[in-house]
Amino acid sequence: MIKVSILGAGNVATHLFRAFTESPEIEVQQVYNHRRESLEQFTNAATITDLKDLKPADVILISLKDDLVSTYVEKLQDRNELILHTSGSVPLQKTAKNNGVFYPLQTFSKQEEVNFKEVPLCLEADSEKNYQLLEQLAKLVSDKIYPISSTQRKSLHLSAVFVCNFVNHLYQIGEDLCEQNQVPFEILHALMTETTKKATHNSPKRVQTGPAIRNDQKTISSHLAQLDDANFKEIYKLLTQSIQRTHGKKL
Amino acid sequence: MIKVSILGAGNVATHLFRAFTESPEIEVQQVYNHRRESLEQFTNAATITDLKDLKPADVILISLKDDLVSTYVEKLQDRNELILHTSGSVPLQKTAKNNGVFYPLQTFSKQEEVNFKEVPLCLEADSEKNYQLLEQLAKLVSDKIYPISSTQRKSLHLSAVFVCNFVNHLYQIGEDLCEQNQVPFEILHALMTETTKKATHNSPKRVQTGPAIRNDQKTISSHLAQLDDANFKEIYKLLTQSIQRTHGKKL
Repeated sequence: MIKVSILGAGNVATHLFRAFTESPEIEVQQVYNHRRESLEQFTNAATITDLKDLKPADVILISLKDDLVSTYVEKLQDRNELILHTSGSVPLQKTAKNNGVFYPLQTFSKQEEVNFKEVPLCLEADSEKNYQLLEQLAKLVSDKIYPISSTQRKSLHLSAVFVCNFVNHLYQIGEDLCEQNQVPFEILHALMTETTKKATHNSPKRVQTGPAIRNDQKTISSHLAQLDDANFKEIYKLLTQSIQRTHGKKL
Repeated sequence: MIKVSILGAGNVATHLFRAFTESPEIEVQQVYNHRRESLEQFTNAATITDLKDLKPADVILISLKDDLVSTYVEKLQDRNELILHTSGSVPLQKTAKNNGVFYPLQTFSKQEEVNFKEVPLCLEADSEKNYQLLEQLAKLVSDKIYPISSTQRKSLHLSAVFVCNFVNHLYQIGEDLCEQNQVPFEILHALMTETTKKATHNSPKRVQTGPAIRNDQKTISSHLAQLDDANFKEIYKLLTQSIQRTHGKKL
């Protein structure tokens, strides 16, 4: 049995709490947040609003805003537990006695259920012994475990902005264009799903299609003429150029 | 029973041939291509390389390159069949006796099987009677039928470039960044799939996340410093600005 206390009450903390609670080999001992109201959702947990009330455990997992991580690790520096954080952009900390990172590479929202077994967990620790405990905990909730250094995690976090945040923005542009022309955006859903499926079954570089890679100037000009929004036009041009540069040798 | 002949042997023609063949109420009468070699894959079909050999049918479906559509419709102008084309960017033709559009909004490749029942079909015809035959044919192969005008189809084709071709390019940038830092790209697959799932279950505008919408300047600067490639840096800046402009009121 691994005893875990969680610091935080946001999306990541909530999903981790659920995943930990479902494992018979993990006991979530306490959930901390400085605001009592944020803890109301944790109905079947012992909740605290003062770090002094933290009981001894095996692991303390910090799932707070990136900026707060180092401050909280310092506050916990005299404790014997393995102190983990869940942030993609914060390096492995050194100030606690036992330090580690437990970074779930997924986008979490309250409205969408997530199958945690499928969530890739990027792990790092300051000693072999701490890594073993970290890995033991991680394997109880996910089937996808990766040892990842702070430098690698930093690059994954940047890649995630491209394949998640920026991709979602392109979806939103697609939605805007549909609205402007009274077309239901749902017509594009099957295409979005298939595009992503193809890019996960193959290297995205090998399955690139469209007017840019074909260097189909007639279609490119017609698309640019259709775009009223100067911003969307700029994005169309830049991504077209970038595709052509990447695949330059083929043209 | 609807008798269909197909002109073309590319990805779309191949997937349509399969879907039509599987319906007991459709008979694929002939498949035409001007090159005999391209027709070798159609083992259980009557194939022809000369339009003069086309037998009478109910529908002739042109699935050739966009540039060739109008030329082929003209060649078929004296025929009595309903002449369809499958192109997103070509308007409804007028030169044949009976004209229509059968545009499957999906990305097709030879290596990926597609469940055709899930492929959205955008339909348009030059008369109510022709639309009825077109719809009857479409309903035999797909559950997702949309009446779409030429103007609407033009905007769908443009939106598809954003949500498919450009999205795939962002995936490729993510893959490049992973390779540069010796991280397996597969760690990002779950995030890609979840991001797309969220954007099809909700309005993408409502589920936007990341440093741009949070106006997290520290992370944005750190990401820009990490990007060596001037092109990727430019894309990062432009998409960040565009997200901030879209969600300006929230900041």
